[in-house]
Amino acid sequence: MELTILGCNAAIPTTTRNPSAQVLVANGHHFLIDCGEGTQFQLRKLHVSFMRIEAVFISHMHGDHVFGLIGLLSTMSLFNRSSPLLLVGPPDLQSYIAPLIDKFCDNVTFEVRYHPLRFDKPEVIQQIKSINVKSIPIRHRVDTCGFLFRELPKEPNVKKSAIYKYGLSIADIVSIKNGHPLFDPSGEEIPRSELVKEAAPPKSYAYISDTAYLPDLHNELTDVSLLYHEATFMSDLNDLAAKTLHSTARQAALVAKAANAGKLIIGHFSSRYDNTDALEAEAQQVFLNSTAVYDGFKIVF
Amino acid sequence: MELTILGCNAAIPTTTRNPSAQVLVANGHHFLIDCGEGTQFQLRKLHVSFMRIEAVFISHMHGDHVFGLIGLLSTMSLFNRSSPLLLVGPPDLQSYIAPLIDKFCDNVTFEVRYHPLRFDKPEVIQQIKSINVKSIPIRHRVDTCGFLFRELPKEPNVKKSAIYKYGLSIADIVSIKNGHPLFDPSGEEIPRSELVKEAAPPKSYAYISDTAYLPDLHNELTDVSLLYHEATFMSDLNDLAAKTLHSTARQAALVAKAANAGKLIIGHFSSRYDNTDALEAEAQQVFLNSTAVYDGFKIVF
Repeated sequence: MELTILGCNAAIPTTTRNPSAQVLVANGHHFLIDCGEGTQFQLRKLHVSFMRIEAVFISHMHGDHVFGLIGLLSTMSLFNRSSPLLLVGPPDLQSYIAPLIDKFCDNVTFEVRYHPLRFDKPEVIQQIKSINVKSIPIRHRVDTCGFLFRELPKEPNVKKSAIYKYGLSIADIVSIKNGHPLFDPSGEEIPRSELVKEAAPPKSYAYISDTAYLPDLHNELTDVSLLYHEATFMSDLNDLAAKTLHSTARQAALVAKAANAGKLIIGHFSSRYDNTDALEAEAQQVFLNSTAVYDGFKIVF
Repeated sequence: MELTILGCNAAIPTTTRNPSAQVLVANGHHFLIDCGEGTQFQLRKLHVSFMRIEAVFISHMHGDHVFGLIGLLSTMSLFNRSSPLLLVGPPDLQSYIAPLIDKFCDNVTFEVRYHPLRFDKPEVIQQIKSINVKSIPIRHRVDTCGFLFRELPKEPNVKKSAIYKYGLSIADIVSIKNGHPLFDPSGEEIPRSELVKEAAPPKSYAYISDTAYLPDLHNELTDVSLLYHEATFMSDLNDLAAKTLHSTARQAALVAKAANAGKLIIGHFSSRYDNTDALEAEAQQVFLNSTAVYDGFKIVF
């Protein structure tokens, strides 16, 4: 998986940070997560082919997460995109964007499909085939979901040496891949390590923004490889975070620690922070493997 | 007057040019002209206080001229703007933006006033007090207006030396400012040059985008100090310009020449042009005082 941060600021953009947007490439599939104003410019500057984006996930209907969508769709149409685009978001995403498409995109060249989110419980989004994508309701001033992307478990590779040594048929290989044992002519089970190279464990990525601190959220994120959790404020503004239903860097780290995440990245910073070192340090006090992201930040995991 | 170009590209933005937007400061009044996506970021990067913007002029309802408006209004509201904002644009500007304000700006902090444009003939927009602003219908694929901003003629200054020498009363001064002659005790008229310093001639700025070449347009722009005219293409794409109702650099220069403009600036470049030197050269062949603008271009005139 590869993640690129296009924007990581809270509602009021700064001269160095754009509003929320990021691109996840998972098994070759390109997903855009949130789409603040200027997302199409950031995609071009960071050399991400936005024609390859298969689906856009909108966490909630606040402007800093959605104002870039009509510009992006409009440019896709000017570029004669033909493949369908899935828009995953709150039910009012469709009632917002469909009239804008009608008004501003002459003869739109591709089909837009909608998947309305639910907010009462997590849900696996069935339209995404090769990656398990789950929406996770979180708590903000409007209905909001986080998203968890998990690779499907991969089959082990049967070793060529074993195929030659034991004269394996295709049926044998399928059987081994499915986890069944193989016996040598004497009836003894051949050690599995001699037969297969296990595939890498499936990777996963969770996007959690915007939300108040949810002490039980980690239950949905157990062992996630990479967690993005919003950290709008530092702990000295704990009350403001609680009031505006945002999180502090420390709270983001508490979620990462409880979830046993591989790594935490924090973003959605208040525009009051020119420099985010102190936010990163606050998170690292709770969960050492924490990084404050920036526009253009890229990580392969 | 001072003009700052925030964006000067046509519909498909490039990595170096944003979609249309510019700021005119005239007699201390700040006017935003068109508002493509990312305008609020450009305003911040170029250190233009967007809280001082009194009016926004939208030439036509194409996305590259209007997608940045909701983000700008939204941020103005987050900054607790209190002074009213005038939006001048096609009648459907209001039906487009008002529902977005309702949806995305909680408790909007300022009043938005609308002035719907007419497209049958030029019109003086009365709401702008100290500057004469005229809308000029031009010809594009949707209803479109250019805008002409003219300073009102300024009164001459009565010289201090004359006030002392002739013991002028306030009534005398008002009379002289209004152009009336003054006579010395012998009944001889005092030369006007001894009494007043004439004010600088009123400056004017015209914004013409997007439009097909209009051979009679110069009649509306006579003696304009600075003319911005779109030049989406070069003359080798004359047919494409005609078909899409855009202009070439040469056509922009023909308008400037016929109007006896002080200076021409061209913009709204097709994204096919990485470098705009050739467009500038093409315009200069017809009208020498032509410049191809860029994002961040600033001119005081």
